[in-house]
Amino acid sequence: MKKIAVIMGSDSDLPVVEKALDVLKEYEVPFEVHVFSAHRTPVEARDFSVNARENGFGAIIAAAGKAAHLAGAIAANTTLPVIGIPIKSSTLDGLDALLSTVQMPSGIPVATVAIDGAANAALLALQVLAVEDSTLAEKLAMARAKAMQTVLEKDRAVAAKYNG
Amino acid sequence: MKKIAVIMGSDSDLPVVEKALDVLKEYEVPFEVHVFSAHRTPVEARDFSVNARENGFGAIIAAAGKAAHLAGAIAANTTLPVIGIPIKSSTLDGLDALLSTVQMPSGIPVATVAIDGAANAALLALQVLAVEDSTLAEKLAMARAKAMQTVLEKDRAVAAKYNG
Amino acid sequence: MKKIAVIMGSDSDLPVVEKALDVLKEYEVPFEVHVFSAHRTPVEARDFSVNARENGFGAIIAAAGKAAHLAGAIAANTTLPVIGIPIKSSTLDGLDALLSTVQMPSGIPVATVAIDGAANAALLALQVLAVEDSTLAEKLAMARAKAMQTVLEKDRAVAAKYNG
Amino acid sequence: MKKIAVIMGSDSDLPVVEKALDVLKEYEVPFEVHVFSAHRTPVEARDFSVNARENGFGAIIAAAGKAAHLAGAIAANTTLPVIGIPIKSSTLDGLDALLSTVQMPSGIPVATVAIDGAANAALLALQVLAVEDSTLAEKLAMARAKAMQTVLEKDRAVAAKYNG
Amino acid sequence: MKKIAVIMGSDSDLPVVEKALDVLKEYEVPFEVHVFSAHRTPVEARDFSVNARENGFGAIIAAAGKAAHLAGAIAANTTLPVIGIPIKSSTLDGLDALLSTVQMPSGIPVATVAIDGAANAALLALQVLAVEDSTLAEKLAMARAKAMQTVLEKDRAVAAKYNG
Amino acid sequence: MKKIAVIMGSDSDLPVVEKALDVLKEYEVPFEVHVFSAHRTPVEARDFSVNARENGFGAIIAAAGKAAHLAGAIAANTTLPVIGIPIKSSTLDGLDALLSTVQMPSGIPVATVAIDGAANAALLALQVLAVEDSTLAEKLAMARAKAMQTVLEKDRAVAAKYNG
Amino acid sequence: MKKIAVIMGSDSDLPVVEKALDVLKEYEVPFEVHVFSAHRTPVEARDFSVNARENGFGAIIAAAGKAAHLAGAIAANTTLPVIGIPIKSSTLDGLDALLSTVQMPSGIPVATVAIDGAANAALLALQVLAVEDSTLAEKLAMARAKAMQTVLEKDRAVAAKYNG
Amino acid sequence: MKKIAVIMGSDSDLPVVEKALDVLKEYEVPFEVHVFSAHRTPVEARDFSVNARENGFGAIIAAAGKAAHLAGAIAANTTLPVIGIPIKSSTLDGLDALLSTVQMPSGIPVATVAIDGAANAALLALQVLAVEDSTLAEKLAMARAKAMQTVLEKDRAVAAKYNG
Repeated sequence: MKKIAVIMGSDSDLPVVEKALDVLKEYEVPFEVHVFSAHRTPVEARDFSVNARENGFGAIIAAAGKAAHLAGAIAANTTLPVIGIPIKSSTLDGLDALLSTVQMPSGIPVATVAIDGAANAALLALQVLAVEDSTLAEKLAMARAKAMQTVLEKDRAVAAKYNG
Repeated sequence: MKKIAVIMGSDSDLPVVEKALDVLKEYEVPFEVHVFSAHRTPVEARDFSVNARENGFGAIIAAAGKAAHLAGAIAANTTLPVIGIPIKSSTLDGLDALLSTVQMPSGIPVATVAIDGAANAALLALQVLAVEDSTLAEKLAMARAKAMQTVLEKDRAVAAKYNG
Repeated sequence: MKKIAVIMGSDSDLPVVEKALDVLKEYEVPFEVHVFSAHRTPVEARDFSVNARENGFGAIIAAAGKAAHLAGAIAANTTLPVIGIPIKSSTLDGLDALLSTVQMPSGIPVATVAIDGAANAALLALQVLAVEDSTLAEKLAMARAKAMQTVLEKDRAVAAKYNG
Repeated sequence: MKKIAVIMGSDSDLPVVEKALDVLKEYEVPFEVHVFSAHRTPVEARDFSVNARENGFGAIIAAAGKAAHLAGAIAANTTLPVIGIPIKSSTLDGLDALLSTVQMPSGIPVATVAIDGAANAALLALQVLAVEDSTLAEKLAMARAKAMQTVLEKDRAVAAKYNG
Repeated sequence: MKKIAVIMGSDSDLPVVEKALDVLKEYEVPFEVHVFSAHRTPVEARDFSVNARENGFGAIIAAAGKAAHLAGAIAANTTLPVIGIPIKSSTLDGLDALLSTVQMPSGIPVATVAIDGAANAALLALQVLAVEDSTLAEKLAMARAKAMQTVLEKDRAVAAKYNG
Repeated sequence: MKKIAVIMGSDSDLPVVEKALDVLKEYEVPFEVHVFSAHRTPVEARDFSVNARENGFGAIIAAAGKAAHLAGAIAANTTLPVIGIPIKSSTLDGLDALLSTVQMPSGIPVATVAIDGAANAALLALQVLAVEDSTLAEKLAMARAKAMQTVLEKDRAVAAKYNG
Repeated sequence: MKKIAVIMGSDSDLPVVEKALDVLKEYEVPFEVHVFSAHRTPVEARDFSVNARENGFGAIIAAAGKAAHLAGAIAANTTLPVIGIPIKSSTLDGLDALLSTVQMPSGIPVATVAIDGAANAALLALQVLAVEDSTLAEKLAMARAKAMQTVLEKDRAVAAKYNG
Repeated sequence: MKKIAVIMGSDSDLPVVEKALDVLKEYEVPFEVHVFSAHRTPVEARDFSVNARENGFGAIIAAAGKAAHLAGAIAANTTLPVIGIPIKSSTLDGLDALLSTVQMPSGIPVATVAIDGAANAALLALQVLAVEDSTLAEKLAMARAKAMQTVLEKDRAVAAKYNG
């Protein structure tokens, strides 16, 4: 099975990124975590990306804040799907990270999720693997069904409380 | 080979979306185009999404403007990767479409690309298929190499003109 | 008397939405509360909307945050007035929810109130019912008169304190 | 039948507002158009609003740009539903008008539609009247069905062109 | 001597507005404070404005948040200088109040100061009175000189600490 | 009679600023126009401001774009009311000029009008002079009455066309 | 004399960047122009940066639009001053490029100038060289004096036209 | 060795500015700190700037919030490189200070760093001095190498914890 890489630009992003790791653990998909900075360890970030496909990765998640170049820098060096998580880590509510991640030039896409949307980044990586993995696809569908049940239960609880 | 679906919310989005179609044709990957509106034909949008996986699709591209719900509405009904293109079609420069597409709640990711970034949406869909398709992965890598050559040629042209 | 439906996308929206419920209780207008997610329980959201008119509803209030598709998804399935409350539930101060709620495409209006403006959403729903219900219209006018008195009292208190 | 009032802050808003008038004519609902400025003719704006209900109006549409106070000034003087159209008429893409219209204080709601969303404002006013008017409700539902057909036809046209 | 009026849209604005009152007290200029809401007590707001000049006022300060119509509503009813203080009282950091206050249509100016800039609003009102009042002008100049001294002292303190 | 100064940061601002000059001419109030740059001719800007009061000026209008420091730089050197016109002259729709003009620190107010709001800047300067000049106050009131008549005429024209 | 490097991310940035080249030619400072893309030719961008100091460069100007990573990618590989020009090349008025360029993480500064501010980027590079080059410093001061004269002449022209 | 000047607009900016001072101390580069306000002590700000070059300074760092004119006011009076730090000190998250600092008109560049980016401002000043100072350049390169090591260590720590 293909692995998923989870790269963060700084270990201060870990509290957000851990929500992605929790999802990956829950699905028992192999993953590898790294702290690579587009600006402080550009060589490591590049080397990892260049070799990611042959090292068995199927998708790369990259989380960074402020002028968030990490996802783009990784995407520039691989043709694997790169999923960008804009991290809120400046005074600008994450808008700087969102625009720095999503507004990529033609030729080098980054699949961007919501600001601090780490759980969705992991789910998106799993969806990528699930295109050719029907077992994983089924697991994802079951989780959707379970999430639906949770909402329905909350609806019943709220309805019981307010609708008399 | 898995097909790629390209859904747009209105046929007025076609001039932007055609850049995605051009990329898909260039790579000779099978695709299917539809006009489904999250608000005007919600049933068709839903039915297409629910059945997309078993109908042989590997990724769905969804393009919409303003309060762009289309990608999210599709993503709610499939566990295939859904790629959202925010379209600039209001006075707000596409910012409304970007936020409506990317700020998805936990559980239902949308892989968002740049405003009007249709070519990148197609490339991202191809990258998803290429995870398990080494021929396609090679083609993508060759296009990158070609794009690199183009930049290098432009560099030589500019250098020749200005650097004496 | 027509009922008012109050739908929220997640029970985490309840602390805001309760201000709407308080207003509806105060006016003794029948209402029904639900937790329906545009993305996690789209079928329930749709079914409720499709049948709302014949089930005796006169207006639907829908509250959601982030890429807030709920009000639009409901409005797509009914011709009842749908009132959208953008909820601040991301890092972006509710601007994402506001634009996702208000910037609806032509054909499917959503009557949008202020970010977290739940009390006004309820008042707007009451105003809709009051178009043909002169008793309710009178109650609304009396509440306005009372609110006016409250401001006048505050003016007197402030004037007494500062104007000597 | 209740009438719909369409008020604009300046006759320069007419090109946008006419889309609302076209909708109202199409539905053969009686309406009355006025140019009242919240700042230049505040007395007329107030008098119209205070008397609107007894003069047979069921909803008031108010369109204004920049620091758009018109909808709020009207809403302050009636308990009829007031629908605000933020008009793009400054350099700020209509964002100033949107925030000035939608961010109303508690007690005085304005049902805000999209920037320049005049057709939807008219539809929303019709939906308000249709709460108690089943003939109008049916007309609205038929228009939705027709809009759905239009999208389906466009889908067929696009599919025919691209899907081979 | 002309008086200065200080109007706020809600007594919840008082903590900000008090900075204006402190300045006015310090300069011993007569002032009058009121709570008038553009939407809840529009008649009182209007009556005060219409009569302000003949009641001896020389400038009116108006503070309001969200869709801040108060300053504009007052300015519409007087040709006295109206100074608007946009109050941060929503989730949007005061940007809604700023745009609602400053983006006035041609013909009805509002002299807008910074978000929550109550002290400057008072100083601006004093500057207006000081155009024809040389004693007041001198007092303002002396306060400037004193503020300059304060900065110079802080410079000396900082310089002493860091410049060795 | 006190004069009004109109300063612009660049003669490229003249097309906007001329709307202020037109108003001043119409009211036959003496004025003086200058091109002073806060950054390119700071000495001239400063000297003019320092001496403005004793040179017979009653208010200073300052127009500038981008990082618009001109109004603030003038305000720092006089206690006359300084009216700032933020000019749209960059790609940012005038938002940069608005924030650079209005967000002044405590102690140095700038009376800010709308982006490109030159006519209102002139009217505000006239209102300042009119505090102690009843003839001018009357002229301003008459212009308001005339503007009201214009709106009423437009209302009649629109009503005649649409209301049958 | 140290050379100045001018790097642009795409030759479509040339119309803006040429304003920088014009300034450098005017000052007769040696410069070298290149088209290097952070994403399409990352190796060339990196190699140039790593070797820039020993190749005789004293400052590097980098221009890019959208998710503008170029300046940061260069700054990550050199300790020379890197000057970033955010280019307006998307629908977002250059705000995306500005935030992507200026919001750099601690340790890797980019000296950012205004959106499309190519002339200022060149002047800033010259100012850097002029710290130790008194001839260049004098030339810069003379240009300032000349710019001052130009403004003064424009002031005289405007004053002659309007001040009678 | 050239000195670095660090100017702040208010001593309330000191907690942010101290991060710049810490960097300068660490590199043992001579510096001088001042509190000069563009608006309250414009003469001192100007005099310092005019004489900075001949007083042995090689770069000036200027920190200010809100309508942050300080860096521009200093840059107007010197041809030394001026580095602007936009300070978050209003409700607007520092966006006002960023635009007021970076959007300088042609002719007067300000080298702008991130909001509250004081450490980077100091590093940029050091990079300016290091253009002609190879010892300092080497120190900067060594700090980069050390920062790289820190990231690599964090990568190892994170990898050890999560990668098993």
